[in-house]
Formats: sequence, structure tokens, C-alpha cells
Amino acid sequence: MTVTHSDRAQRVLDRCRQIADCSEVPGEITRTFLSWPMHDVHALLRGWMESAGMSVSIDAIGNLRGLWPGIAADSPRLIIASHLDTVPNAGAFDGPLGVVLGLALVEELRNARLPFAIEVIGFSEEEGVRFNTPFLGSLALTGKLDKAMLGLEDAHGMTLAEAIRDFGLDPANIPAAALSPRAHAYLEFHIEQGPVLESDRQPLGLVAAITGQSRYLVHFTGKANHAGTTPMRLRHDAMAAAAEWIVAVERIASEHDGLVATVGRVETRPGAGNVIAGDVFASLDVRHADDAQRLSAANALLLAASHSASRRGVEFVARQTMDQAAVPMSPWLTQTLAAAAQSVGIQPTPMVSGAGHDAMVLAEAIPSCMLFLRSPGGISHHPDEAVLPHDVEAALATGTAFLQLLAQQHPHLRHTL
Amino acid sequence: MTVTHSDRAQRVLDRCRQIADCSEVPGEITRTFLSWPMHDVHALLRGWMESAGMSVSIDAIGNLRGLWPGIAADSPRLIIASHLDTVPNAGAFDGPLGVVLGLALVEELRNARLPFAIEVIGFSEEEGVRFNTPFLGSLALTGKLDKAMLGLEDAHGMTLAEAIRDFGLDPANIPAAALSPRAHAYLEFHIEQGPVLESDRQPLGLVAAITGQSRYLVHFTGKANHAGTTPMRLRHDAMAAAAEWIVAVERIASEHDGLVATVGRVETRPGAGNVIAGDVFASLDVRHADDAQRLSAANALLLAASHSASRRGVEFVARQTMDQAAVPMSPWLTQTLAAAAQSVGIQPTPMVSGAGHDAMVLAEAIPSCMLFLRSPGGISHHPDEAVLPHDVEAALATGTAFLQLLAQQHPHLRHTL
Repeated sequence: MTVTHSDRAQRVLDRCRQIADCSEVPGEITRTFLSWPMHDVHALLRGWMESAGMSVSIDAIGNLRGLWPGIAADSPRLIIASHLDTVPNAGAFDGPLGVVLGLALVEELRNARLPFAIEVIGFSEEEGVRFNTPFLGSLALTGKLDKAMLGLEDAHGMTLAEAIRDFGLDPANIPAAALSPRAHAYLEFHIEQGPVLESDRQPLGLVAAITGQSRYLVHFTGKANHAGTTPMRLRHDAMAAAAEWIVAVERIASEHDGLVATVGRVETRPGAGNVIAGDVFASLDVRHADDAQRLSAANALLLAASHSASRRGVEFVARQTMDQAAVPMSPWLTQTLAAAAQSVGIQPTPMVSGAGHDAMVLAEAIPSCMLFLRSPGGISHHPDEAVLPHDVEAALATGTAFLQLLAQQHPHLRHTL
Repeated sequence: MTVTHSDRAQRVLDRCRQIADCSEVPGEITRTFLSWPMHDVHALLRGWMESAGMSVSIDAIGNLRGLWPGIAADSPRLIIASHLDTVPNAGAFDGPLGVVLGLALVEELRNARLPFAIEVIGFSEEEGVRFNTPFLGSLALTGKLDKAMLGLEDAHGMTLAEAIRDFGLDPANIPAAALSPRAHAYLEFHIEQGPVLESDRQPLGLVAAITGQSRYLVHFTGKANHAGTTPMRLRHDAMAAAAEWIVAVERIASEHDGLVATVGRVETRPGAGNVIAGDVFASLDVRHADDAQRLSAANALLLAASHSASRRGVEFVARQTMDQAAVPMSPWLTQTLAAAAQSVGIQPTPMVSGAGHDAMVLAEAIPSCMLFLRSPGGISHHPDEAVLPHDVEAALATGTAFLQLLAQQHPHLRHTL
């Protein structure tokens, strides 16, 4: 019996479903950092990885790490990774898919050794749910998990250090979780979590960069007055000012290539139907792959708010809550990934990631690349999150070709580093 | 010692402050329908009224009624009234000022009899706080207090009938609270509760009509999506649709003379800064003194919402929660009131009332008129609510002149009815 691509893709999907069954909450997929079902996930992956001949360990932050050695003890090392934690009531693919695909690529080698080792990592934490701080798993690899972070407390008052011990690990060993000095490249498969690939009818997306983010909390202060007795000309309506601004946010972002800007939260006070809003609190989220363009757009959006406020005798203030720079992926690895896809007949869509990923953290340490798989309906962080078997096959074929191209590049690989 | 207008105005203000001291909540002015401090208010007013020679009674809904007889037993009867209940944490003048001014006008007669009796009424309920139903006091006068309303329950589960008994009254006597068949005219003094008179630098406003109201709860349903991964062109942003509509509401109302339209409550869901709003719930409040114009404007505003929604692939539905017709005041009484003001050198501003008042209820039974006193800062339903002594003097002078003009009209008064 031959194993076809379709069988392999189905096995990837089945394994994601098995992992999804490991949940803190019966009937839904909820698996936060170092929660007890993570032990079950580790047991599943360890079994599959060891069957593939990999050696498996759990590092001190709870990352599961499976190693497939290269042809030499000092071979460079390719990291293929994503995360194993989820948001509450999540889907089955955001995170685990990237880990399971990495394992499947090792299985496709059928015990062949490459000029580089492959380390498949299931990060213990990416979503930031339990300690309100994302990327704890990947930060440990790059030595950026600050000792002070061990004092972070979860909603039950348990510190990060205590949570690590509670899981059976020793926080003192976190430094040993650091990336091997031989790690030379990072590859992450992830669902797109957006509608672009579906809209373009493409299975795969090639991530050029992860966008930078500016976030603000804004406050319009007008004057709460009687909705019946205050003529339009004598109003200082905070909601009207905010509304004109929200329309401007949508218009400016739509006119600016690659920019997304969102006012997702709006709260009116006093919030009664017969009272003009005296106060409006709102959020602003601005993202662009180019930091200069993001900063310039954010300034334009805040200026638009000031204008729509002052025209109505309304006050406007904004407080910045995030200013995160864009992270470009490695051109070398991204071009190799593109060539790999093309070699199997796929023309992946070049795109930027509007969401953060572990690759952001790894890119600061080693050349990194990301391949997106189409998200049906653009849905993620939801039980309906899905991925198409055909797209998983495309990712597997691209990944296998990528390994072959990397192996061919080997003679000049160390030079590239 | 002569009593000057200034002394009388100051006495009106002092009495309002004394009434304000009767509160359910120490340190603030909160006096809901049939609450115990209402007994203290009744005791104060009864004392002042009896000193003025009036006969005082409390009817079965808790209205305080002081009668100053006319020259004959069958003289027609002018009602001068307003309400004694308050919203929570209220000011001292919304309601009680109109009652105290009525009493002051009787005192200014210095025991003279007119061709009509004067009944000064302090309505027990206008604000609708306790039973979520306004105008209970005035409805009893016009026979519109439905027997079924006795089953209304307050927040503690006490019925209206029980509350009446708890206050020492008998709900079976409500029919006896009906207006005297000789009642021929109604006059209400009230603070403006808006900024128009202050903006126009006028002490008094002459109410031509109480506006009609249309109220709606509206719901925009878009698609909640990731704020980072969803390009602008693929969004169905419920908040952007609502914002464009709110700007249109402001614009359309501003362009339309006498129209006010307000979106005072906006709620986004899921309401996270990094998620495009999938749902927006909002209120719409539309008022105009002309019903046809109000209905036409409301339709235009709902149409604007449909347009801003459909342009974004967002659904829009609206549910009407109020459709209240405008109530015109009596042209005869309003002209008499204008003539009275002019006779004392005041040119009152003609205006419409954007808020509801007991005069709305009385106007369905007898010719009614209203005189507004300027609200400093447009403030009401707030401890800072105020009224200027000079404006109280203007109202007293106008009221006295109004009584004189009514008395002169007496020969053809019955004909007018």
C-alpha cells in the first residue's frame, strides 16, 4: 500500500483533531499555557515523533522539542515550529497545525538524513491568555524571557515560576531552553486567520513581513445633555465627533495600500437613548508592514479625531498602548520557500501577516520564514476554524521541496549565515 | 416693610430648597413617587397654602391640591401645577418650582377673589422612576389612570396599589381625583431643562407645543473579524456602518428646522480593540413639534442607516420603542400668556418643549399652556440645576399679569370654552 499525499494530509488533520481533544473545558477547545491537557498533547506528539525516530524532550518553559539529526553532529539545524496553546473556545488548527506539519515533513524523509538537522518545536505559549503576555515559549529560545517575568501572576494568583513547577519543570533550567548555536533557519506554517487567500482562491501565502502595530485608547469628552431640549446647534455630542472620526479611519485606511485601521470598541456614557453622549471611549488599532507608513497613518488618524472633536467643541485625548515595529521575514528563506512552492506548481500569494506569530520572536535571532494556509471563511479563534485537505497537501509538498532546496544550498549555507 | 418682587423671588427659591431637603438619600435630592419624604413636602406646602387661606387636600394618587376659591361657588377653575417627585440625585427646581410659583401667585392676590378659582396642584408622579411609567399624578386627573396600572410593580415588587395604601391613601378613591368639571384652563411653570433661553439671553420661554417623539433600538450586524488580518476591502464592519449613519443623523437633523435626533447609546460587540465589530446596538431618538415632519425625518434616518449598512455588506434592523404624537398648547392661553409677559416688559421666546411634561396630559382635557424659565448652563436632572432670581421675578410678574388678563376675559370665558 502506498501512502498518497491525500493520506498524509488527512493524517495531519486527524492529528490536529486528536490534539484538539485535549482541552481544559469539556466540549470546547481551550488549552492554555501549562494547563494539564498540555501533558496529553505532549504524550501524543512524543509518541508520533519517537515513531518517526526523533528524540524528544520538554524544555523548562514547557516547549516540546523533537530532533531529527543531520548527517553530522555539527550539522546546522532548521527549526520548524508553532504553538500548542490556544485561546479559550478555539479552533483545532491555530498553532498545532504548524507543529504537526513539521513532524509530517520529517516522516516524509523516511529516515533519510539531510545536511542539516530538523528540530520540530511545539511552543508552550503564544496566545498570551494565561499570563496576559504572549510568546513565552519562543522568548525562552531567544533568551528574551526575562527573569522578572517569572513573577507574572495568572488570574488565580499563581506565578509563572509556580506554574512551571506545577507542570513538573524547573524554572532554573530556562537558560538551557535557548536555541542551539547551530540553529540556522526557522520555518513556521500557520493558518492565515484572515480572508485574503480565500478571496484570491489561493491555497498558500508567503509572508514577507509581520506588520507593526500601533494601538490607542481614545476619549472624546463632550457634554451630556437632554436629547429633547438641546437643539442641534447647541450640542457638544461626543458620539457624533467619534462617528465622524470612525468614518475617517475607515476612509483613510482604505485609501492607503497595505494599511488596516480598526475602531473595534466604542462605549458611550451615560449611554441612555434620551441623553446626548457626554463621553465616548474607543479603541484604535493601526497596522502596516512599513513602520514609517504606520506611524504617519496613526498620526493622520489622531489628527482626524482632533478635527472632528474640535468642530463640535468636544475634547479629544489619545493614550498609546502599543507601538510594535514590523518584523520582516528573511528574504533568502522566503525566496527559497517561493521556489519550493513553484517547483510543485503553486504560486503562493505574497502577503504580510497582520497578526503576531512566534516567527516575530525567532526572526530577531535567526533567518525566519512563514507559510500561510488558507483559512476557510477567514475564521480563526473559533470552533469553526478549518483548513482544507488540499491546502495541507500543498503545504506538505512545498515543505518537502523546501527541505530539498535547503539541502542543495548546503555548500554555501554556512556562507549565507 | 414692603414686600418687593426680589423678596418674593427669593422666597420661591428658599421654598424650593426646603422642599429639596426632603430626600430619600442623605446628601442628595432623590424623592420618588409616594416615598416617605413626600409626606414632609406635603406638610411644608400644606402649611404655606393654609397660611395663604387655601384649603388643602391630598387625592388618592398622592397629588397635593390647594384651592383658592373664585367669586362664586360655580366659578371656573384655573389649574396651576407641576410635579413634586424627582429623578435620582436631582436638582431642586425641576417640578417643585412650578408648584411653589403657583402658590406665590395666590399669595400675591392678598386674599382678593377672582372670577375663577385657582387650584394649585403638586403632582405626585411625573418622572416615571419608581414604576417606570411617567405622569401617574396627572393621569389620575384626566381619568386616564387605568385600573390595570394599579398592578404595576416597583423594583422591590410592591404594586402601585400597595404603594398608595402604604402612603396612607386608598386606591379605590382614584376616580375622585378627577379634574373638577369647572376646570377651564391649565398653566404650568417649569425650568427649560435646555440651553435655548440662556443662548438667546431670555428669561422666559413660551411653549407652543410639546414635541412628538420617535424612538428606536437599531442593530447593525456585520462580521467580527481579526483587525490585523482582514484587509479593509474584505470587511463587514458594523461600527463603520453605524458611524457613517450617526454622522448622517447629525447632518440631517441639523439641516431640518426644529428637528432633534440623537444616537445616545452605542454598544459594540465583541468590543475588543483588535477585533472588527460584528454587532453594533444603538439608540435613535427623534423629536419634532410637527408629527408629519417627525415621521418623515425618522424614515429618512432609518433609510440612511440601511444605505450605510448595505454599502458594507452589513445588515440593519430597527425596532420602534416609542411613537408619541406632539401636543400643541392652547393658542388662546399661550397668547394670553404672551400678552401678560409683554405687559410687564418681557418678550418671551416662542419655543417647543423637547421634553415631556404634565401639561401634555392635561392638554388632552382642558386648554393648557406652559411658561419656561431659563436653565443656567442648560442643566437639569443634576444637583447643579439652578434658576436665576431675576427670572423667577419675571415669571411671577408674568403670572400675576396673566391672572389679571384672564379675569378681564371672564365675560366671554365660558364662551371660549
